[in-house]
Amino acid sequence: MAIFTVVGAGMMGSALCVPLVDRGHEVRLVGTHLDGDIVTALQARNHHPKLRYDLPEAIQAFPHTALAEAMDGADILALGVSSAGVAWACEQLKPFATRPTFMITKGLVGKDDGLRIIPDVVGEALGGHPAAVAGPCIAGELARRVPTCVVITGRDAAVCRDLAAALRTPYYHVSTSEDAVGTEVCAALKNAFAMGVAFGAGMHAATGGEPGSIAMHNVESAVFAQAVVEMRRVIERLDGDPLTAAGLAGAGDLDVTNNGGRTGRFGRFLGMGLTRDEAIERMEGATLECLEILAVMRTAVKAWGAEAELPLLVHLMEVGLDGAPVALPFDRFFGGSKG
Amino acid sequence: MAIFTVVGAGMMGSALCVPLVDRGHEVRLVGTHLDGDIVTALQARNHHPKLRYDLPEAIQAFPHTALAEAMDGADILALGVSSAGVAWACEQLKPFATRPTFMITKGLVGKDDGLRIIPDVVGEALGGHPAAVAGPCIAGELARRVPTCVVITGRDAAVCRDLAAALRTPYYHVSTSEDAVGTEVCAALKNAFAMGVAFGAGMHAATGGEPGSIAMHNVESAVFAQAVVEMRRVIERLDGDPLTAAGLAGAGDLDVTNNGGRTGRFGRFLGMGLTRDEAIERMEGATLECLEILAVMRTAVKAWGAEAELPLLVHLMEVGLDGAPVALPFDRFFGGSKG
Repeated sequence: MAIFTVVGAGMMGSALCVPLVDRGHEVRLVGTHLDGDIVTALQARNHHPKLRYDLPEAIQAFPHTALAEAMDGADILALGVSSAGVAWACEQLKPFATRPTFMITKGLVGKDDGLRIIPDVVGEALGGHPAAVAGPCIAGELARRVPTCVVITGRDAAVCRDLAAALRTPYYHVSTSEDAVGTEVCAALKNAFAMGVAFGAGMHAATGGEPGSIAMHNVESAVFAQAVVEMRRVIERLDGDPLTAAGLAGAGDLDVTNNGGRTGRFGRFLGMGLTRDEAIERMEGATLECLEILAVMRTAVKAWGAEAELPLLVHLMEVGLDGAPVALPFDRFFGGSKG
Repeated sequence: MAIFTVVGAGMMGSALCVPLVDRGHEVRLVGTHLDGDIVTALQARNHHPKLRYDLPEAIQAFPHTALAEAMDGADILALGVSSAGVAWACEQLKPFATRPTFMITKGLVGKDDGLRIIPDVVGEALGGHPAAVAGPCIAGELARRVPTCVVITGRDAAVCRDLAAALRTPYYHVSTSEDAVGTEVCAALKNAFAMGVAFGAGMHAATGGEPGSIAMHNVESAVFAQAVVEMRRVIERLDGDPLTAAGLAGAGDLDVTNNGGRTGRFGRFLGMGLTRDEAIERMEGATLECLEILAVMRTAVKAWGAEAELPLLVHLMEVGLDGAPVALPFDRFFGGSKG
């Protein structure tokens, strides 16, 4: 058994501590400067206010001011801060010898005219080749030990294999993938695309429809399939494995993000006809990763000149970034249907 | 504009008549000997009792005894009978010179130790190379002109192109694919896999859960992703294009079948812990394509010796054909997670 230090006490970082504790590891969870209330609630009564759930008392919670103590003797360091907090976390971790072993935080970062995956950005800042975890995993379900399958990827296959072996529990099923690029592309883009998959449910609600069999499932599923096609095209641009889009990190995580995530809720508001600003207001301050990744992708798609092959993504940028109304360009999906 | 004769007045054959009429074609819909009530209701008041919806009055409904009249001068013949009715339909159509242009009926048929796609079976019986339509398309939504994207595939690319051009309307978006094998594999297998995707919702309901964000979405999405992986493996066995599993006919149709189809409902009953027989009883006589395709696949998987690479499909056979309880073999998904 190992000593795991998890930095970032948000929903996913905290939920991941549950299988770690169940597996018998020593688990130290360090909040950022934004996680003060969470650390206090965990220390007082093992309660996580954002997960709205009591976590195992074996999880040791630390404020960010106690980072040195939490790092003392740590075998495995995991980063679970928000994408925006990665730079801050790297700065905090520089004084310590232990390098991050894996990233819970997902994402793509724009660089010059290209894109970089977050594990590479962190590896450059702190050394080593961090692995990353991806796949369908709603944090609230993981905390409640609902079974799921996830994938560990990274540029160092031995790190991935050892980490996967250390993470497995009877409900947290971990496989490995050598396609770090494709896996991270999917992990980042699924947020943008899940917003679009949810448009159909919003359009249905706007016409007075109730959930049921005569809805707009055809719309949702056409967008879903086009999303997988476009994830594949972005992966190909970055020399990853196109089949990753068809697996756990692609189709699997897209499905769960639409069904159980806040991005789906945001997309439904847009599909109902709310303006971008109205929809953001309805989300009451929730972090909208979909808008962050759309901004990153706009620069990359422009640099590639790839607008024609990514018609859904381009429309999502118009809706999510520019405030355009939802008007799905079906005729440009699947290679076009003119003729 | 052309004269379309559609044989089979079930939900999908009848729904497809709506875009045909909207496009200005002359449309003749021929019921089978099982569609007597439907033809009577359509002739009397343009009402389709199974779709529970009034169809455009321009659709001309014929009983199977008037097949010769409905075939007179037909340019394009579409087959929309059930898989089980294909042999009957071929027999009825033999006296006529017009060959089927496309198949609405989907499926795989066992032959010796292999599998054949239904368009090939019909082409052999009646001549020519029929095309086929696939992709996410709930009939009740198509009849109500809810937008969707579908794909036309077949062994004759010119037939597919011309047919796609004749079918398009502002809500029925049609692209083409040259991968007839992969497309038909997905069209057939999605029924079996959608049953498995729905287990999670049933398991959630069985533990007293209500639909909502803390459900078993992780389970559903892990199964969804494994389903796409296994569709790809079956396609590879039959020398089709593995990427088809990641597109409209694969991931797209799987998504819609789970969300809007009766197979999803059946899977939820099984996930709740009902026995196979109890679940069948709850479906009140609805055709369960999932069980038909599972029986076909059992023979093929056995002949291939491919059980190890298709763990989800094998479990679905155990549940759907043998009455075993649901116990998803997560540890064998995604290449296995032992180590």
